[in-house]
Parts: sequence; structure tokens; C-alpha cells
Amino acid sequence: MHILITSGGTTEQIDDVRGITNFATGKLGKILAEQFLTANHQVVLLAGLTALVPDDHPNLQIIRISNVDSLAIAMKHWVPKMDACVHTMAVSDYTPVYMTDLETVEKTKDIQSLLTRQNTEHKISSQEAYQVLFLKKTPKIIASIKNLNPDIILIGFKLMVDVSDAQLIQTARDSLYKNNADYILANDLTTISETHHKGLLISHNYIQKAETKEKIAQLIVSKSEEVYEKYNHRSNR
Amino acid sequence: MHILITSGGTTEQIDDVRGITNFATGKLGKILAEQFLTANHQVVLLAGLTALVPDDHPNLQIIRISNVDSLAIAMKHWVPKMDACVHTMAVSDYTPVYMTDLETVEKTKDIQSLLTRQNTEHKISSQEAYQVLFLKKTPKIIASIKNLNPDIILIGFKLMVDVSDAQLIQTARDSLYKNNADYILANDLTTISETHHKGLLISHNYIQKAETKEKIAQLIVSKSEEVYEKYNHRSNR
Repeated sequence: MHILITSGGTTEQIDDVRGITNFATGKLGKILAEQFLTANHQVVLLAGLTALVPDDHPNLQIIRISNVDSLAIAMKHWVPKMDACVHTMAVSDYTPVYMTDLETVEKTKDIQSLLTRQNTEHKISSQEAYQVLFLKKTPKIIASIKNLNPDIILIGFKLMVDVSDAQLIQTARDSLYKNNADYILANDLTTISETHHKGLLISHNYIQKAETKEKIAQLIVSKSEEVYEKYNHRSNR
Repeated sequence: MHILITSGGTTEQIDDVRGITNFATGKLGKILAEQFLTANHQVVLLAGLTALVPDDHPNLQIIRISNVDSLAIAMKHWVPKMDACVHTMAVSDYTPVYMTDLETVEKTKDIQSLLTRQNTEHKISSQEAYQVLFLKKTPKIIASIKNLNPDIILIGFKLMVDVSDAQLIQTARDSLYKNNADYILANDLTTISETHHKGLLISHNYIQKAETKEKIAQLIVSKSEEVYEKYNHRSNR
């Protein structure tokens, strides 16, 4: 199979020296890539700028991704060529529009008018005691994947913080429907540590639990292979 | 000598999954640490979470630093024990206070009242089309260093973007006075690339130019040694 893995986090620039970032080490994406390579698949890894990545391998191509825009461009290029996509990346939900000082915001009657402004300075001044940063929602990358390639096997990720298993499962199922995904790996930040990583692989009629990054990766590799065999996806394996 | 090097960037959390970060690879801090080690000095490296760091070395201690608060705590501990401090770290100028949706800001008459609020959610909702993030200035770490240890040799860094050499020199001299630094390495983001890094090492009566990270590091190592010898700082080299 040809596998597309996204991993790490994106960073949206505020100015030339600062940005908003989503925390993600890329560890799970690295392990996933290694296990798919061991199982003789071809892997393209779209990795955040500071994400951990595997060592060089003849069947591995690594492409570094800075922000949501560059991720969207890369997805348009790669998704149509792939059999499966495991989208683990922590993608920025919001991107900066305009940053200004508090006084300007206080004096502006029509707050929405600030959304039409742009910072022209390379490095926004750090003289003021307070700054106000306006952010707008980014396009949902996961929602675009099946549009780009209806045949792709799509495994999405959903990270929540300190919720019950029932909430995790419900949110994952919502995401399955909304994004037309085949599986969602739902996980909770409070159950992730150096040695441990609880994940639930969820489809409409299936839930399987794993307790480490290695086990999560194994589950995703075998499930992708199973679905691929079942539907006998394009025979380019 | 005992050398304290700070490198990489700090990240201030917005919530459990997002933060504001200052861009810095830690490359120059790594090279600096390596050159000080080669010259037989003892090095403590305070490095941002994703900063590049040197390989293990018996005279090197690496401590990872997440945000400005943890940097301030580490500085209080280490600065009094050190002969010189090379402060290359890109420290966040602002830290998040409160993030809310645009409608709330529009409806709030007294904008300053929002500065007294705090986010209690682990992961701020990404449903709204816009979000507004209020930020407050962080304490200037460089300004505290000579207060913590008046005998320390202090070499600060000043990064600007697309300015003239005259502006670079003026800003560096302002920083020298304000922070009671011995030297400021002034550099301009537009002159930094994979192979090139223009830096001006500046004191009240001295300017020396270097064109690569290695040359900048050499300059800083030899200048630190020269100042140390001259004033015969505590004989614990």
C-alpha cells in the first residue's frame, strides 16, 4: 500500500519571529511510519517542523510542513496518489489575523473592523503592557481528504482532554460521520505519558483499545491492511 | 570557566494543546556549547523544548525549558553559580491571559475587565469563527541577570528584522545600557540562512562582525575568555 501519514503539529505565524503552535512531538507518527515500513508499505510522512521522524529508509519520503496552508497544498498533491491516510497531525484550529495593543481595541467601536487589518511590521513591538491577537478559524483538513480521494482509507485522530470514555467514543463517532472517515483513533491527553498512551480505535460498529503508542500503531497498520484487502483497493501494493 | 548558555525558544501555553512560541532552532546555542566544551569550560545549557542540543559530554548539563516562568526559576538557580552567561534564547515577550470569542469582546463594555478572566477549559472550543486572545508582557529575563550576579560576564542577543547596521548597533547599545550587559550580539533575521549568519558583537567601544554561526561562537568564546582573564574572575576555571 501507499500510506500517507501526517504527524507533529502546525505553527501559524503571528509575525516573523512568533507563532501559535499545537503541541505534538510526532512520536506516534514516527512509530506508525516505522511499522508500515516494516510491513513493506511505501510511506510519505508529512511532518511538522519539529516533529520526530524515522531514520532514512528507501520506502520513506519525509516532507516538512509549517502551517495549515502548506498542509492543505501537500494534501492536495498526495491524497489522490495514496491508498490510506493516517492523519495524526495536531492542526492549528485558528490562525492569526491581526495583533494590536489593548488601547486600540478599547477605542475601536466596531471591533469587527479590526479583522480587516493586517500587521505590516516584521516583528510586532513588545513595548505595550498588553496585546490583543485576533484569530480566525482555519479550514478543516480532515474534512477535505475523502473529497480529494473517495477511495482512500481514512484514519483520523481526535485528541480530547480529561473526558470519559463515553464522551471520547461519542466525539469520535461524530467525527467519523462528519469527515467520512473509516476509523477515528480517539485519545485523551491525560492518559498520555512517556511510557503510556491509551487510544480507542473506533468505527461505526467497532471499538478496540490499545495502551501504548506501539500497540496503537500495530492496530492501525493491521486494520488498514484488513480494509485494503477486503475492498481490494487499487492493486499497487 | 562555568558558562551558562540559554538557547532555542520559549512557549507560553494558551491551553493544554496550544501555545505561543518564539521561533528558534537552537543551532547557534548548540555550536556555542560545543566550542566552550572544546575550550575546556564547564557548560550548563538551558534549552527550549525543541532546541537542538549537543551530544552528551562530561562537562555539559542540559536542562529543558518550557516557558518564561520556568526560565526565570532556572536563571535564579544557575546565574549566581556561573562566570559567564550567553543568553541566546528567544524568550516570549507576551504570555496568554485569556482567550474568548469575538462576540464576547464586542458585548463587553469594559474591555480591561476581560484581563481579569481566566480560561478554565483544558482545550478552548474551536467552534467559533473567530477568537480573541489577550496577552500580557512577560518580565525581561535579560534585565535580571546582573542583579542575580553582578560579577557575571553577560553576553546578550538582540534579533531584529530587516534593519540597517546603524539601527542594529543603536538597538544593541541601548540593550547594553538597559541590561547592564558586557556585550550584545546583534543580528538580523534576513541575514540568517542555512549556511550564513551575520552577527555584530557590540560593546560600548567595540564592534566585531562575524558571518557564520561558527565564527559568531568563536568570537563569543574568545571574548568571554579575554574578559575573564582581564578581571581574573573567581579562579574556578
